[in-house]
Amino acid sequence: MSQSSAAFKPDDKDNSPLYMQIARKLTDDVHNGRYQVDQALPSERTLSELLNVSRVTARKAIDQLVDQGLVVRRRGSGNYIAPRIEQPLSNLTSFSEQLQQRGHQPGSRWLKRSIVAPSPDEQLSLGLSPYSKVARLERLRLADDVVMAYEVSVLPQTILADPEAVGDSLYRYLDSIGKAPVRALQHIRAMNASAELARQLGVPEGQAVLYITRIAYLESGEAMELTHSYCHSDHYDFVAEMRRPI
Amino acid sequence: MSQSSAAFKPDDKDNSPLYMQIARKLTDDVHNGRYQVDQALPSERTLSELLNVSRVTARKAIDQLVDQGLVVRRRGSGNYIAPRIEQPLSNLTSFSEQLQQRGHQPGSRWLKRSIVAPSPDEQLSLGLSPYSKVARLERLRLADDVVMAYEVSVLPQTILADPEAVGDSLYRYLDSIGKAPVRALQHIRAMNASAELARQLGVPEGQAVLYITRIAYLESGEAMELTHSYCHSDHYDFVAEMRRPI
Repeated sequence: MSQSSAAFKPDDKDNSPLYMQIARKLTDDVHNGRYQVDQALPSERTLSELLNVSRVTARKAIDQLVDQGLVVRRRGSGNYIAPRIEQPLSNLTSFSEQLQQRGHQPGSRWLKRSIVAPSPDEQLSLGLSPYSKVARLERLRLADDVVMAYEVSVLPQTILADPEAVGDSLYRYLDSIGKAPVRALQHIRAMNASAELARQLGVPEGQAVLYITRIAYLESGEAMELTHSYCHSDHYDFVAEMRRPI
Repeated sequence: MSQSSAAFKPDDKDNSPLYMQIARKLTDDVHNGRYQVDQALPSERTLSELLNVSRVTARKAIDQLVDQGLVVRRRGSGNYIAPRIEQPLSNLTSFSEQLQQRGHQPGSRWLKRSIVAPSPDEQLSLGLSPYSKVARLERLRLADDVVMAYEVSVLPQTILADPEAVGDSLYRYLDSIGKAPVRALQHIRAMNASAELARQLGVPEGQAVLYITRIAYLESGEAMELTHSYCHSDHYDFVAEMRRPI
């Protein structure tokens, strides 16, 4: 801490308020791994002394991080760095597996699950006939009770006949019925959260979120899952390893 | 066009203005590949007739797409779908190569290039001594004269001694001096554009953009490039193919 904070100097050319500059600096520190998940952030008092700013400024900077969801307040014990999921973009590992590997408790909060008629886009993406039905799963994905993402998954009814049977992990359930995907294509975009999405994710309206569309395939090549994920960007670290084609 | 537009019905449960609903529908159509790059969008008049809305509403919907940068007005010949770059996340291909493969004209608008002392973060990421120097390249990346991204690249001076020698493509130049990267790690996040970034990209302040940090390596394993890219999300289609680990 002391090293990175010592490196903080208010930027004269930056006309945003001092607390915003401090919040951005701390955000960068978190993203650059200067703090570990579940590590406590310095208290308001310590921060104000280290950076030589008022306690009000230090508090506003911390409030900003809490609002962003980057820091979680724990009653009586201070402010902690929220969980973050590192998601390699080449491995089709499930959200639950990924979190468990890092010692977090994955969870799902179900918003809706039903068997419905597919939308035109869903028909197109999954190659379905207009008379087919799909299972539609709408849920919040949690890590240690922090909301990480809002997800809507659509699977042909022939793959998932009983959406109520799915537990916390869709992929674990699909594995158990011998229908796990072997391959997926993901498209990654950024979007501003609508009022409704912001409410679900617990972020301010308009906040930039990662919007990921995934189509997953069975060994046979049959498309078996279309998922739209809206991910709280501060909680995700999508990593791609690229190699120069020969 | 006629098919997808016929599918448009105002959503009674959606209380956003009609032109916004139409703009969103058209945006989805573009993202889903219903229109091709460089294809003309239907005119205001055609759109208003097809969708049975007023010309004012049709115009506002198109204006919205232009503001998003998804559609480019060409004087006297109508509105065209702006270029989009499909970027596979496993191949380390350069921006210029990627665009050329798709028949677009890549370009760079230089904002600054200089030899400077590295920041603490740059030292850390590139494993540099505090007394070393780096080449710092700041530029806008263009496709057919449309601004796609704002990029800041930092390379050790031992790799790039003469930043003025770089043409439109950094990687082509590095290739020519035998210092092309063979591998890179990319981290992908979403962020809201600051006023300054919004001005550079020509988007509204606060618009969600993709924020990508790349560290590239030489064959020897030496870190040789740190690039921060701020990408206009509507112009990029980052694609990752994932496989189930065995």
